[in-house]
Parts: sequence; structure tokens; C-alpha cells
Amino acid sequence: MILEPLKTLKQGNQIYLDHNATTPVAEVVAHKVNEWLKQWGNASSIHQSGRGPKTLIRDARRALSEMFDCQALEIVFTGGGSEANNLVLKGLYEHLVKTHQLTERPRMITSQVEHPSVLKTMEFMASKGVDVVTIPVCRYGKINLEQLEQALKEKPTSLVSVMFANNETGSLFPIQKITELAHQYGALMHSDMVQALGKIPFSLKELNVDFASFSAHKFYALKGIGALYCKKGSQLTPLIHGGAQERGRRAGTENTLAIAAFGEMARHKDEVASRAASITELRDHLEKEILARISDVEVTGAGVDRLANSLSLLIPGVDGETLLMNLDMKGFSVSTGAACSSGSPEPSPVLIAMGLSREEAQSSLRLGLGWGTTREEVDLFIEQLVVTVKRLRSFQHGMKANG
Amino acid sequence: MILEPLKTLKQGNQIYLDHNATTPVAEVVAHKVNEWLKQWGNASSIHQSGRGPKTLIRDARRALSEMFDCQALEIVFTGGGSEANNLVLKGLYEHLVKTHQLTERPRMITSQVEHPSVLKTMEFMASKGVDVVTIPVCRYGKINLEQLEQALKEKPTSLVSVMFANNETGSLFPIQKITELAHQYGALMHSDMVQALGKIPFSLKELNVDFASFSAHKFYALKGIGALYCKKGSQLTPLIHGGAQERGRRAGTENTLAIAAFGEMARHKDEVASRAASITELRDHLEKEILARISDVEVTGAGVDRLANSLSLLIPGVDGETLLMNLDMKGFSVSTGAACSSGSPEPSPVLIAMGLSREEAQSSLRLGLGWGTTREEVDLFIEQLVVTVKRLRSFQHGMKANG
Repeated sequence: MILEPLKTLKQGNQIYLDHNATTPVAEVVAHKVNEWLKQWGNASSIHQSGRGPKTLIRDARRALSEMFDCQALEIVFTGGGSEANNLVLKGLYEHLVKTHQLTERPRMITSQVEHPSVLKTMEFMASKGVDVVTIPVCRYGKINLEQLEQALKEKPTSLVSVMFANNETGSLFPIQKITELAHQYGALMHSDMVQALGKIPFSLKELNVDFASFSAHKFYALKGIGALYCKKGSQLTPLIHGGAQERGRRAGTENTLAIAAFGEMARHKDEVASRAASITELRDHLEKEILARISDVEVTGAGVDRLANSLSLLIPGVDGETLLMNLDMKGFSVSTGAACSSGSPEPSPVLIAMGLSREEAQSSLRLGLGWGTTREEVDLFIEQLVVTVKRLRSFQHGMKANG
Repeated sequence: MILEPLKTLKQGNQIYLDHNATTPVAEVVAHKVNEWLKQWGNASSIHQSGRGPKTLIRDARRALSEMFDCQALEIVFTGGGSEANNLVLKGLYEHLVKTHQLTERPRMITSQVEHPSVLKTMEFMASKGVDVVTIPVCRYGKINLEQLEQALKEKPTSLVSVMFANNETGSLFPIQKITELAHQYGALMHSDMVQALGKIPFSLKELNVDFASFSAHKFYALKGIGALYCKKGSQLTPLIHGGAQERGRRAGTENTLAIAAFGEMARHKDEVASRAASITELRDHLEKEILARISDVEVTGAGVDRLANSLSLLIPGVDGETLLMNLDMKGFSVSTGAACSSGSPEPSPVLIAMGLSREEAQSSLRLGLGWGTTREEVDLFIEQLVVTVKRLRSFQHGMKANG
């Protein structure tokens, strides 16, 4: 049987190059939404109306577990990636409190470039007395493994939380190695895999992490749903107490529609994987052309492993925010950093953590391609970027000359 | 302009009489889903793709605030009613810790018949050292106001949390009076209004509560979205830390689709209200017929104010679970208690709290009509109930005679 190739919903005529902020909804999801909506019953109801939703949820859980290479019951559905990250950090802490396993000052280790839903939660944990150690990364985005091991050696550690792929630069972290280290020193391992899902192949069994966070809206499904992988036997206190849904790990009536959509995309994992792999060529073309046609551009995180879809640039002499707005007016959606800190006057904390100056960070441009991105879109973008950067630079040059 | 009357999606040929567990999706919501799905951008993105979602969310927030009679920015979207309840209880506690406002053993007061997402969270708060006082209700479901006032007098109290309408019996609580009492003694007031929304008219301004929880899937919209009303000036520590969404009160990419659907239903508030009001007649007909045609039936919470759509019955000589399954096979969806404890062998904790014996509670039947319920459906149900109860009772009688 020949499957229709996956397509995504278009939003007007905008050329969307910000797939690390969110992804378009896949057509295959949109087409089935009305069918799933008919299963509006409460999945906890034991009568007929509950059975359809329960089956949809069971099938989605199974499809996701096949994609992740884990057991179905190791998946806890959450309201999104941020909730999953909060659940693991707070839930583990509360579990340690409850079971009197807290050392005097429990230690948790993370990296400097995590998503805010990890970093802000770690700040909250620190306010509770947790000894939070933040491991730095170098200018290329590599985590300092020696420092990580040193921190593990120093003191018993409850949890290490390091992301799989950075949401701004696309840098990949050696999760298998970090997990081995964590386990060697008796710590549990969590990884925020929100940006990795659908972009690089992985097996949770091989990676051997204890916890992993995922979000459906970075995977061409719907917003408002995520998942936390909890390795069999691992225990957490729920973040949301109440009913016994998700085997007592997350209360609240199940979001059948969004769960079904997440599962649907998991069933297309092979096509997603092959399409995602072919993005490398497109991204490399984009990178090569930009470096060739715009002077002094630097690729953030060049030379280290990174996601095939991501390109993070420094374009000296151009204010990132101004560039973004100019490109937006021409019909191109790009960003300067993470969407969740958009509108903030502060430069990207990730780039600052990588040791870039404020001025450098303020000239950053983040591009994220999707498997729906075409060569034509990329070429149109390159032309527009060349023209816009030239104009902005000459304008700034004029300002300086006249100033 | 004459509007099409509201309709709901049907699930097969099932006659659905369990609207307190969840409601069918309104057709007007289902019809617009595909349009909303096209606004898949991240509402936090500052480029074009974020603007459509941002507008949808802003408009929904406004429509909800008009329905609730509050300000738009007093509404915090959450992943559901359970999350809203957890957010207010844990968020207030953490805020008191953070601002060093904790008395030695902070007191929180609630009722015995709250939803599990309040009761289980209160248990968790108690494990943290909070002095949780649970006020009993009488056999008719009325809360003991003298005991409530006594508890407030005894000790400074941080928060009173009492639901507006009970999810099993439909009993209504005098929220305005309880709020006055709470405020008189310096406590903040929260009310779980999940079951009240769309069933009885209210104004948050008049009720004067400080916090109120809502869920969209009990209001003919989608699952996975809820709201917490936070009166202007009130402060909570987020349950989900991370990005600055919802003005820093709830992190995570906004669920544009489900928020838009929630707002859409709010725009139909007048028709919902008039349709909901007309349910009383249908419920009273149902109640009258059942009492006339089946012997020894008792209405739980009869004689106190209750939701117009709800009917909770005790049918002695019949096991509720067996009755439910027999009715289900004939195409009627009803329940014995709350959906979130379905499948549990324990009788309803709400009925037990009301002072019913285990045997009585095990013979309970919960009916919840919706504005889509027809007279014909109700009449078909009455006929089936009469026949089924007769059969089950004679069967049990026979068992006893032969036993």
C-alpha cells in the first residue's frame, strides 16, 4: 500500500522556519479530529460512552511506546512538556520527602542551557533547600562532563536532568554517557527530549534514562498534551492530585482528542524519521549559502553534534529583533531565541550561558526547518535574508557615520 | 437573526444520562475545530504565526470573563479542573512559604464532599503540616455552617475551599454566605465551580470569592482545558514553573484549540442558560415518575437546593453496579458515583460522608441530564429502569428465598 506523503496545515502564505517553537498540525491529524471528537465520553466511565475513549487512549499509548521503545504503562500523559518537566523534578523531591529518603540537602544536577520549565523549577527546588548544581557548557554548546562527574563525586545526588537537544542551537547532549555517569554514582537520570522527538531516532531502552519528557505540539500533533516516560519501578508523587487516572500518577479527565492525535503521529514514525533525515541536506544548503553570501556570520554550536533541522546564527551588525520583524513583514517566520521568552528585552539566556556577549546574543537568528519545508521556501528565504541583512547593516553603518 | 439551536455530537445510539461525568461536544464547537486548527502557531511567537493564536486566546479569555462577570486577566487557563484545584491549594501554600507568611501550622478548611482533586490535595497539604479541617455535611448534603464558623474562630485560617455544586448529588452550597464568613475571619475563599458552570447562573463579582475552578469538558467544549479565576491582587506560586505564559501564573505553550472552544461555548452562554433552566421540568418529570413507579426509592439530597439537571437515587434491593451494567446493555449511560472513581469497589465517598450506610451507598444511581436530553430519551429511560429494577429485585428476592 502506498501511503500519501505526510503534509501539514498551512497558515496563510507565511513561510514558517521556526519549527523549534512549535510545528504545524499534520493533515493526517486534522483529518481525523472530527472522528475522534465523537468519542467525547469520559474514559473513566465504565459504560458504553467511556469505552471508545478508553480504546483510543490505549492505542495511542501503545503506538507511543513502540516509537519510544518502552512499555506502554511507562508513559504518563501530561498537559504538555513543561508539566512533564515539573512533574519529574517536584514529584521526585516530594517522593523523597514522603519516604524519608532525603539527605540533609539533596542534590540535583542540571545544565545551564535547559528549557525554562527545568531551570525555573530547579530555582524553585533550590528555594526548598535542594542543592542545585548547574553544569556549564562551552561556547560550542558542549556540556562539561568532567564538571558533571566532579559534582556527582562530591555528594550523593538524587537526580541528573540534562536535555537531549537544545531548543535554540539544536546541540545534542551525550545522554547515554551522562546516564551511565549518573547511574554510576547512584543518581536517577531525567532527560527533556521535547526537541529531539521526531528529529532524531532514539530508543529509551538503549539510552537507559529513568525519566524523559515529551511534547506533542513539537511533533505535528496538538497542543496541550505531553508525556513523561517513567521507567518501570520509578516512583514520583503526583504534581496533580485527585482521581486515579494514569495509574494514580496524574489526575484529571484524560484529554482523549489530543492523546489520540499524539498516538496518530507516533504511528507515522517511520515516515517522520525518513523525512526528518532528509532535512539535513536542506539545512546544510541553507547554512552554506548564508555563510557564502553574508559576511562575518557565525554558526552557533558549529562543529558539535546538532539536530539536522536547526541552524542558529550570529549576524554581527544586525539586531536580531529588528531582523525578525523585517523578515516577518516579508512573510517569513523566524525567531531570535525560544518562543517562550519572546518579547522579553533580555538576550537569550542559552546563548549567554554559552559564553556569548550580550551584543553577540542580540544579533542571533534561530532557524528551525520542518519535514514540510521545501527547497523553494529555503531559497526564497536565503534571497530575502541577504537583502534584509544588507539593508539593515548599511542603515546601521549610516547611523554610525552620521552619529 | 435566528440562531440555530445548540446541538451536541451523538455517540452511537447510546442515550447519555451522565452529564456530570462529562458533556458531549457541542456541534458549534466541532464545526469550528478545523478552522481553529489552522492557527497552530505558538501564541508566544512574535511573528505572524503567533498572532492568530494570540487573538483566539484573547477573545476566548474575554468571552469567559463576560460569562463569569470578572476581568479577563483574572482568568488563568489550566490543563483542566483538577489542575486548577491543585494550583490554588498548593500555589497558595507555596506563596505563604515564600513570603514567610506561614503561621506555625497554617489552617485550610474544606468540606467532606469535595471532588478528589481537592480532597486528595488537602491530604497532601496535611502531610506538609497544614492543619486541614474537613467540615461534615448532613444526610441531605447541607454543610454545617456552625462548624465552619467554629473552625474559623478557633484559629487563623489561610483558605476555605468549598465546592459550588456537588458532582454526585447536585447539592448546592451557599457560596456567598461561606465567602462572607471566610472573609470575616480573614481567610481567602476558593470554590470548585466545575459542576456549576453552564447549569446555574452566577456572577463571580457578586459571589466575591477569591478563587474559582472551572473545566471546559463539563461545559460542552473540549477536554484538557480548565481555568482558575484569581481575583485581582491575589497571589499564587505556579504549579507549573517555566515560561511566562498566563502572566507567569502557568507555564507551558497555550492550548489554543481548546481555549478557543471554551470561549466559543462562553459566547453561547445565554442559550446554554435558557436551555439549562428548562431541564428542571424534565428532571422533575423523571423524579416524579420514578418515585411513582418504583417502590422505596429515596432521592439523595431531596429538599435542599440542587442542580436542575441532577438526580441521585437510592434504590434499595438493587446493586448500583449491576443496575448500571444492565442499563448499559440496553443503551443507557448512567453511573453510580463520580466517573473518576469508577471501577473502584468502594461505595461513593460522597454518599458515605452524607451518613449513608455502605449498603445504601451501594444501591445508588446518579443521573445527570444535559440541555441536549429530550423528553423522549427520559421516557425511554423510565420504562427501562422500571423493568430492570423489577427484574433485579425479583432475582435478588429469589436468591434470598432459595438461600
